[in-house]
Amino acid sequence: MSNHIWTDVNLLTMQEDGEAYGLLQDVALVQESDYIAWIGPKDDIPNHYDYEMTYCDGGYMTPGLIDPHTHLIYGGNRIDEFEKRLKGTSYEEIAKEGGGILSTVTATRETTENDLLQSAKKRLANFRAEGVTTIEIKSGYGLDTKTEIKMLSVAKKLNLSNKIDIIPTFLGAHTLPPEFRDNRTGYIGLIINDMLPKITDLRLAKAVDGFCENIGFSYEEIERVFIAAKSYGLDVKLHAEQLSDQNGAALAAKYGALSADHLEHLSEAGIIAMKEAGTVAVLLPGAYYTLRDTKLPPMELLRKYGVPMAIGSDCNPGSSPVLSLKLMVNMACTIFRLTPEEALAGVTRNAARALGLKDRGVLKEGLNADMVLWDIEHPAELAYHIGGNPIRAVVKNGKIFTQKNGDLN
Amino acid sequence: MSNHIWTDVNLLTMQEDGEAYGLLQDVALVQESDYIAWIGPKDDIPNHYDYEMTYCDGGYMTPGLIDPHTHLIYGGNRIDEFEKRLKGTSYEEIAKEGGGILSTVTATRETTENDLLQSAKKRLANFRAEGVTTIEIKSGYGLDTKTEIKMLSVAKKLNLSNKIDIIPTFLGAHTLPPEFRDNRTGYIGLIINDMLPKITDLRLAKAVDGFCENIGFSYEEIERVFIAAKSYGLDVKLHAEQLSDQNGAALAAKYGALSADHLEHLSEAGIIAMKEAGTVAVLLPGAYYTLRDTKLPPMELLRKYGVPMAIGSDCNPGSSPVLSLKLMVNMACTIFRLTPEEALAGVTRNAARALGLKDRGVLKEGLNADMVLWDIEHPAELAYHIGGNPIRAVVKNGKIFTQKNGDLN
Repeated sequence: MSNHIWTDVNLLTMQEDGEAYGLLQDVALVQESDYIAWIGPKDDIPNHYDYEMTYCDGGYMTPGLIDPHTHLIYGGNRIDEFEKRLKGTSYEEIAKEGGGILSTVTATRETTENDLLQSAKKRLANFRAEGVTTIEIKSGYGLDTKTEIKMLSVAKKLNLSNKIDIIPTFLGAHTLPPEFRDNRTGYIGLIINDMLPKITDLRLAKAVDGFCENIGFSYEEIERVFIAAKSYGLDVKLHAEQLSDQNGAALAAKYGALSADHLEHLSEAGIIAMKEAGTVAVLLPGAYYTLRDTKLPPMELLRKYGVPMAIGSDCNPGSSPVLSLKLMVNMACTIFRLTPEEALAGVTRNAARALGLKDRGVLKEGLNADMVLWDIEHPAELAYHIGGNPIRAVVKNGKIFTQKNGDLN
Repeated sequence: MSNHIWTDVNLLTMQEDGEAYGLLQDVALVQESDYIAWIGPKDDIPNHYDYEMTYCDGGYMTPGLIDPHTHLIYGGNRIDEFEKRLKGTSYEEIAKEGGGILSTVTATRETTENDLLQSAKKRLANFRAEGVTTIEIKSGYGLDTKTEIKMLSVAKKLNLSNKIDIIPTFLGAHTLPPEFRDNRTGYIGLIINDMLPKITDLRLAKAVDGFCENIGFSYEEIERVFIAAKSYGLDVKLHAEQLSDQNGAALAAKYGALSADHLEHLSEAGIIAMKEAGTVAVLLPGAYYTLRDTKLPPMELLRKYGVPMAIGSDCNPGSSPVLSLKLMVNMACTIFRLTPEEALAGVTRNAARALGLKDRGVLKEGLNADMVLWDIEHPAELAYHIGGNPIRAVVKNGKIFTQKNGDLN
């Protein structure tokens, strides 16, 4: 951890109620150890003669990017399925051949913890290389106690690098495992009476998620899981209104969920409930794009009611094989018509809020030294380009990684 | 330039009429100096005791990627315009404020050759980092003789690196410059009588392109330019049928064009003409995506008639601010429903054909040692992921660049 002064820098603090992007032009930021000690005019920098200083030449600094929704840990891949679909094989045929989400469940169960760790590390490196410093990862491809714990143990190990914070979520209620095909109640019971207590005991999850959908779980089933989660002191969140309106957003709000995610079919009543509960709307343009969806989330209504919007990659092997959160910022603008400022808030301030993190997501004295310095000429450039990686430096947990020969060292 | 043996490698040769992707599994490739000297079973490698050898551990090797359509050199940027549009400003208002393509013309005229070179180098680095070894670059933001020559001189300088081949195209007939607003014939005359002879004399372009569209140039105007181009011995190609059917594909075919590009509104008659002329269809999913187009190119008919399909980034500051050809491979699949094999052929074999290059685009004895080694598990993985960069090594003009700490060194 370093004491460091960043000067001649344009800060996109992402604080609300000021300039667009919370912009502070041509200022300085003093980092002490792992937190932001001072922000102010560059001529007023406190005397710290022994601090290293970086002249940023008018570069832009943002909070470290935060991905609030991923399924980054999984066994196998669905590349073959991707190709088969494009060659004309139907979803039904693929399902019959054992494809779809259950093929990932089978592969994840069969993959060793170490192999899961290695493949997840490779995927994670792509996010980190583009300035992601905090990332949520869900379980949900185990669907048995042992494999759900295995997935969350991998998340815990990924967190040990200290180069990126992993926020783990337990998603037992992702889909019904084959061995419970005729016993839905039994599976919900397993989640509540076996998985949840063990995972809580091992401190492997911060929150509990579910998939409330015709092809997932019903309102009532999710409610049982939420009640149990709350009894263990865990936060809740929900995959809601992706394919149909299940009243999931209202359910999430009822239990004070951190976020409701996807939301293409969200109703105005759901939005009002989310607003009142302070539940963040997590939008996932990568899944929308991959599934060639045509039903946009209700952006205008979310704006009208002031529901905070976050953006996630939804990194997963089926509906969103995304390895770039930066590209999701572009898709949030191009496909969902967010403004570049809204999209950037979606992967900083509002993504922090979606994960219940109060120590990051904006640049502010006292918060984490968790920042990215970009080689860009305009704040909206982060949303404008499709591809490309203008990273100059990343500060994570007080440690500075600078871009050398294309990598963060 | 090296003599080198690549063994234990899966070659996606992209040759037709064999296995999918022209796959040769677990073979060896001998590179001598700057060409491919031998491909065969790894147990039959000719004795070259002094050649360095790389064991590829079952990695996949493709031809170096080829981007057949870009406007990579330009002054200024249109980031501000991108943001304004998302905040609700209409195209008309932006045009009134001097935005749109003419703002890029103004900026390009005002930017020095060296500044154009530096900004283009930065953009180009993104393509190269993802395995692009050949890239087409058009002029067309000068629209006066001096600036068109300045742009093409930048292209020539970019080519000197030897790390990536630049194929330069003269696009004087991009849009009507403001000083000729009331004198269309005069501008076509300037292209034919002043720009073309000078650019030919300086050997600054390999081909001549035009924009055949209501907001561009008419069939008759483009035809005059093509006739002149042919008289100078230059190849022709055309932006055709992007926004409406102008019979541009047939015009391109009539003059034996290398390619007709965009093609969303292409008719069956145009397809037949292209097939007969051997004109390649260059598809540009980045522009389709950015413009939120809904009219897909006629993929099925292109397949039916066997017109070769190539894929380009269309890198430009307005309608396609794309810095990743690899992402275009995904978009060609996800949006245009190409198969991964078709999409990969689109940035290798067929892209070479669209540029009139016979020495690359497939892996074959006697052709250029112009190759990429990928850290992937399945050929379709190059199309499957959205973001990420699994490059292990690039061979360009016989020189080997290996991935070290995220960069090609």
